[in-house]
This record gives sequence, structure tokens and C-alpha cells, in this order.
Amino acid sequence: MYRKFGGPPKPTVKRLSVYLRYLNALNEDGVKVVSSRNLATRLGLNPAQVRKDLAYFGEFGKRGAGYSVEKLRNNIIKILGLQKFRNIAIVGAGGRLGRALSNYSGFEKRNFRVVALFDINPDIIGTTFEGVGEILPIEALNDTIEKKDIEIVVLTVPACAIKEVYENVSKSKAKAVLNFAPFKLFSDNNIVVNNVDLTTELESLSYHLSLRNTESNTE
Amino acid sequence: MYRKFGGPPKPTVKRLSVYLRYLNALNEDGVKVVSSRNLATRLGLNPAQVRKDLAYFGEFGKRGAGYSVEKLRNNIIKILGLQKFRNIAIVGAGGRLGRALSNYSGFEKRNFRVVALFDINPDIIGTTFEGVGEILPIEALNDTIEKKDIEIVVLTVPACAIKEVYENVSKSKAKAVLNFAPFKLFSDNNIVVNNVDLTTELESLSYHLSLRNTESNTE
Repeated sequence: MYRKFGGPPKPTVKRLSVYLRYLNALNEDGVKVVSSRNLATRLGLNPAQVRKDLAYFGEFGKRGAGYSVEKLRNNIIKILGLQKFRNIAIVGAGGRLGRALSNYSGFEKRNFRVVALFDINPDIIGTTFEGVGEILPIEALNDTIEKKDIEIVVLTVPACAIKEVYENVSKSKAKAVLNFAPFKLFSDNNIVVNNVDLTTELESLSYHLSLRNTESNTE
Repeated sequence: MYRKFGGPPKPTVKRLSVYLRYLNALNEDGVKVVSSRNLATRLGLNPAQVRKDLAYFGEFGKRGAGYSVEKLRNNIIKILGLQKFRNIAIVGAGGRLGRALSNYSGFEKRNFRVVALFDINPDIIGTTFEGVGEILPIEALNDTIEKKDIEIVVLTVPACAIKEVYENVSKSKAKAVLNFAPFKLFSDNNIVVNNVDLTTELESLSYHLSLRNTESNTE
């Protein structure tokens, strides 16, 4: 069972990913030690925030000496559970976003492997997607998730289909959902959900543009 | 010039988008009035948070009577600057994610219009993308942004190309960037940036999965 707990806030967990990306780059460049100040500067944070984030997970750099890149990197990989491959299914794989994600090479590099594709469109069910395999009907979801040990289901279905699809996912053994439909889903005892809404991102940019226009008109 | 200001926090602005989506649905269903409690329940927030968010923008529902759906909806549209179309360019339009976004019907519905596509791949420059037009070389960015009154540039280029591309964008008249490359960009005086990192979303799910495994092993 998935339990709520008094752990670190979501933004801290997301920043761990960002630290990891930078530590990977430093590691490739042969850099051995990094200070919280350096991490902070590169990532637009303040050093106190970086130290606080890492202290959450018991990581304390030596004062004045910084963090060992290798050790910090390995610890974050362990904390984020990235030392093993995690299998992913994509539902709505026939749509444009679904197709883009099915073949997104960035996932595999980070130990996420797309191993099953689903759609409801009879025209594309049974067609083969290069590198992943046949697109399956949604009815095969439950069995496939169990058989292929799939932990994460990515949903790229239209808003109107999301409730029904999510019900199917809830009945399966999947443990996590990344939802791109513009309909917010909530984590529950069995499934943890992250929602990504691309239009919301554009709207928040629009807010800033609109604000700026107002400011320049009154200047 | 874009100025930092003591305005509402980013999460509040993003929640406005989420309220708006729900208000649109209520409006279509002919619902006239909505309470902060109803908004909160549907969206997984607490009512005090909803009232605080809306009070930021001078919106106060009458105690006990709730908010007028139409009035609140129109106000949020105005606050987010969504009463007018905003033009978008996509750089990296030949890649899978770029192609998916170029034809994402959800944007147009929300008053964002993709009007120009760019790539550096000579094989696809000059080919036509259904509904949008010809894919242009990156050298045409500056002129096209000015000529087509493009405010927002969406970047779907690989991490290794992002610095160079962003430099080009900085020199143009674009005012906002939505960055999908796994390399964090920062807002400055001229350009406001939102970063969306899909792998970070998966990694935060992985964190929760990993945590749950640890918990069930120790139970």
C-alpha cells in the first residue's frame, strides 16, 4: 500500500532530479567535488536551499570541502530508485503525444523503458511501433501490466476518456501514473499520480506577458 | 522590460489555469454559481487555499453565496491574458516531441496558435507541416518572430543544442520560452521561461515507488 508520510516536499524531490542531471555532467567531465554554492549558482537556487534539500536525505557536505560528486550522485540515484530499470506503458499511444513519448530516447537513458502501448482506435491496434512492439487494445491492459511487470502508466488520452481509462488503470497492478490529460487526477492509497498539463504552462507564460504589457502601458 | 515583482507565487498562477478549466466545464453545463468548497473538492485543494488564491486578484465571493461562474471565469481569462490569441513558434519541430506539439489541438482551443516551425535538420527544412506551414531554418528565427508577432517560443531541441538555440531566441523579440530540453533555463529581464522536464516527472514517481518498496519490506 502507498502511504502518505511526513517526507520531503514534492519540489525537493523534483530538485533531486535536477541535481542529478548536473552531477552526471560533472562526473563525465571528471569533476570530483562540488560545493552547495556551485550547485546553487548553476541551478538558480540559493545555497541554503541546496543544503536543506540534501540534508533531508542525510547528505551533509563537509563545511568548506563540498560534496563528493560520485558519492552524492550515487546517493541520489538510490534515493530516487533509479538504480534499476522501471517499465512503462503508454495509453493513448496512437495520438501524437503518445507517439512522441513512445519513442522518446531520453527515457531509456534514465532507466525508464517503454514496454507496452495501448490505444482504443481499432485502425491502429495491431500495428507495430518501431522499437516497442504491437499497439494493444485497452482490454489487454490488466494482463500486460502484470505479465511485463509495468510500474508506471503514462496517459496521453483526451480529457473525455480519462475517467474511464483511469478506472482501468486503478484495477491493475500499476503503481504510478503520469497524466497528460487536462483533467487532474489524484494520488490515492494504491497509485501515485503526477499531472503534466502543457496548456497550463503556456497559460502561466501568458500571465507574465499580460502583466508586462500592463506595466509598460502604465510606465 | 520584464520585471520581477511581489506578485502571486507561481503555483497560484498555475492553479488559476486549473480553476479556469473547471469553470469552463461548469459554464458549459449551465452552472451559475460555485463555492470555494466545491472548487476545492473537485481540484483536491482546501477551500482556504482557493479563497486565498482568488483574493490575490481581488476576487471575493460573497460569504455563503459563492462565486459567479461567469464573472470568475471572465476575470481569470483577463488575468491570464487569454482574451487574445498568442502566437507560438516551435524550435526543434522535426523531432518527435516537436511534431506532437506542432499539431496539438489543445493549444488552439485555449487561444495559443502555432504559426512558425524551425529546425536545423536540412532534410526536413522546407517540408510542409500540415496546418502550420513550411519548416524554416533556424537562421530565419529573428525575422519570423518579428514578422509574425510571435510571443512564445517552444524549445524541443536536445540538451546539447539548447545553449546555442537559446542565445538565438534571446536576440529576437520573443518574450517567453517554454523549454522541454533537460537543461534548465532561467528567466531574465527580457524573457520569462518555464521549464518542463518529462524525465523529472518520471523520476519523482520512481522516488515514490522506491519509497513504497522500502516500506513494504520493513513491514
